[in-house]
Amino acid sequence: MTVPTRNHLFTQHSRPASPDRYTSLVAQKDEAPGESRRERKERTRRAILDAALDQLADTGFGSLSLRQLTRSAGIVPTAFYRHFATLDELGLALVDESFETLRGLIREVRQGDPAPETLIDRSVDVLSGQLDTHSAHFRFISRERQGGVPALRDAVRHELSLFERELATDLARMPGLEKWGAADLHVLASLFVDLMVGAAGEMVSPSTDHPATRREIEQNLRNQARMVVVGATGWTPLGS
Amino acid sequence: MTVPTRNHLFTQHSRPASPDRYTSLVAQKDEAPGESRRERKERTRRAILDAALDQLADTGFGSLSLRQLTRSAGIVPTAFYRHFATLDELGLALVDESFETLRGLIREVRQGDPAPETLIDRSVDVLSGQLDTHSAHFRFISRERQGGVPALRDAVRHELSLFERELATDLARMPGLEKWGAADLHVLASLFVDLMVGAAGEMVSPSTDHPATRREIEQNLRNQARMVVVGATGWTPLGS
Repeated sequence: MTVPTRNHLFTQHSRPASPDRYTSLVAQKDEAPGESRRERKERTRRAILDAALDQLADTGFGSLSLRQLTRSAGIVPTAFYRHFATLDELGLALVDESFETLRGLIREVRQGDPAPETLIDRSVDVLSGQLDTHSAHFRFISRERQGGVPALRDAVRHELSLFERELATDLARMPGLEKWGAADLHVLASLFVDLMVGAAGEMVSPSTDHPATRREIEQNLRNQARMVVVGATGWTPLGS
Repeated sequence: MTVPTRNHLFTQHSRPASPDRYTSLVAQKDEAPGESRRERKERTRRAILDAALDQLADTGFGSLSLRQLTRSAGIVPTAFYRHFATLDELGLALVDESFETLRGLIREVRQGDPAPETLIDRSVDVLSGQLDTHSAHFRFISRERQGGVPALRDAVRHELSLFERELATDLARMPGLEKWGAADLHVLASLFVDLMVGAAGEMVSPSTDHPATRREIEQNLRNQARMVVVGATGWTPLGS
């Protein structure tokens, strides 16, 4: 069993003891003046996504509790399905926004066309800043990449391979890599992506919230990336 | 919530509908001739561990079902606690045996004192062989390393850092690395461990059971390791 089906969820989790509480919460939230029906719907959808990210700090997606989720979002459990057809669909929405964060990272690194020799420090600094503001997204990606929910695992891997290809396109423009083929670029881009996702996963882990531990991981990531760059500099393109 | 407590498990999962079925199964199993009480206990413990590894093919440890576990092992749910005080204790036993597998990998690579230039191919071949026979252990390590159960996540990370130090000690003996300090060896060993665990996680994923996909991942792992070795060859030790 990976993701509970709709029926399963309602047999596993009994209905809330005091539905009136939820109704009154929703009623309160609905009172925002001048808010259209569409804005209200979008706000509730956001509240569900945030409640999920919150719960996922301590658990894998396969263990999400729909009841806890809807309670945090201030809606009755059945109202969930006005926003997502299934729990998997909610998960896929989280994959989308997590990778939007990751692409934001690459855009921020590129800004101002930095010199190649500054790229490692700049990338690690940007990653570190993004981890502070979007830790839940990075945790979600690194956990569900190896997670127990097939639809999410496949989606995360697919997005990571697209992200890697985008990085390979950037790398192809770097001085010294002009003669590299697609296979060489794949080796280098996949090294960077593996290192980054691995280190990000370590850094956002609740087990690693000591600042000194985090600085150590960052420093090791810089050194790992430097060793890879030395390797790329001395690399004989495959098949040549 | 990460690991259900004992009480929680018994409220969440109602007692089995036909306890007699379990009793008769246990009775049958107990009939093995000439088996001591201790051997019988060990056999049941093994059956629980195997049932857990089986279930963990499709789910994270945080979603393990004790009822399903004990049913597969042919015992009543309460009998679980004769073997493990908590579910976490079962998880830690799985960490132990998974890392025994990983250390077996390093021993097998070392056998016959192979030449340095053959080490990458040899390591990937041995890893590939171990993945066929112990896929559940590798899947467990790569998933719970980023998993939602703190006790297991911490244990896996601790064991990985011990494994990395053992690898660093091996690397220190390699020609060319004599002048490297502990920090340099840490960079290189952590690169190899990150790449290996990452690739193993990809290879044992149920999403990657096509032989061609697996060969691609193996080939990319060889190339990644080669690029890292080129980097190590041209590396100026830190602080020098």
